[in-house]
Amino acid sequence: METFEAIRTVLAVRQYRDTPIPDDVVREIVEAGRLTASASNKQPWHFIVVREKDTLRQLAAHAPTGPYIAQAPLAIVVAIAHGPLSVSDGSRAIQDMMLAAWSRGVGSNWVGFTGRFDAIKPLLGIPDDLDVLAIVPFGYPATSVGAGKKNRKPLGEVASRERFGQPFA
Amino acid sequence: METFEAIRTVLAVRQYRDTPIPDDVVREIVEAGRLTASASNKQPWHFIVVREKDTLRQLAAHAPTGPYIAQAPLAIVVAIAHGPLSVSDGSRAIQDMMLAAWSRGVGSNWVGFTGRFDAIKPLLGIPDDLDVLAIVPFGYPATSVGAGKKNRKPLGEVASRERFGQPFA
Repeated sequence: METFEAIRTVLAVRQYRDTPIPDDVVREIVEAGRLTASASNKQPWHFIVVREKDTLRQLAAHAPTGPYIAQAPLAIVVAIAHGPLSVSDGSRAIQDMMLAAWSRGVGSNWVGFTGRFDAIKPLLGIPDDLDVLAIVPFGYPATSVGAGKKNRKPLGEVASRERFGQPFA
Repeated sequence: METFEAIRTVLAVRQYRDTPIPDDVVREIVEAGRLTASASNKQPWHFIVVREKDTLRQLAAHAPTGPYIAQAPLAIVVAIAHGPLSVSDGSRAIQDMMLAAWSRGVGSNWVGFTGRFDAIKPLLGIPDDLDVLAIVPFGYPATSVGAGKKNRKPLGEVASRERFGQPFA
């Protein structure tokens, strides 16, 4: 899928078909994360690729806003070094992974944030010097999505020309 | 450009040709930011689209790591609401803008971070309740880039299978 088309149409997907995601697509998603740019090229991230049903269920049990993780064929747990730049870098990597997935027909959603998943660190053996930034479940959408209709503020409200408050549009 | 190809090949570009960026491409870049997903769909961002040479020069003067902003035909100043979720959301929007630009042949680079640009807030009339997350200069690359050769940690170092430390690759 063309880049802008992916950006324009990607939507949060919280219901997944049972269909497994082929290995080459999983690999492309992880590669998208790995290849992302970061501050001073520190790459302060680690991606834990979870496909075992039991682990997915346990992740879901720890994520009040993400019970649907249990139904996903794949979740990537994104762990990052401490600090605000790592949050920024990790967010860029997640964005790339979600777009790469969407471009191959795979939906996803961002679940949680730093400080909310300390309980899953022992489950996945994540060391103390990393935080869990997000659990991102992936799967083929169970229902038709992607019409590109998004609820967003109008351009005039979020963009200015030359100086804050001068309409861009 | 296909989405994964854009993610795979995008590189920081710090030298730009004089060629202006056509309005429709500028608009697509800003739209990419606007359409990005954010926590609770808050869209806690504002994009200031700067093309006036004098303003670009002043932005460059305030950015010790970004003197090349003065040579860019365009810079987008990304302002965000306070807080870590805004840093994350704004970072996702910047990632989308950089990819949308690259997909149209336009290079860019992330300059600065929150807390480093308070001095440009009066220059651009940015209100106190917003922070400047980044200045992102855009332009057609002055030299040939994009061979897709990136300096990144190997997959085995940044990705695990099922549990931290079990090699993914």
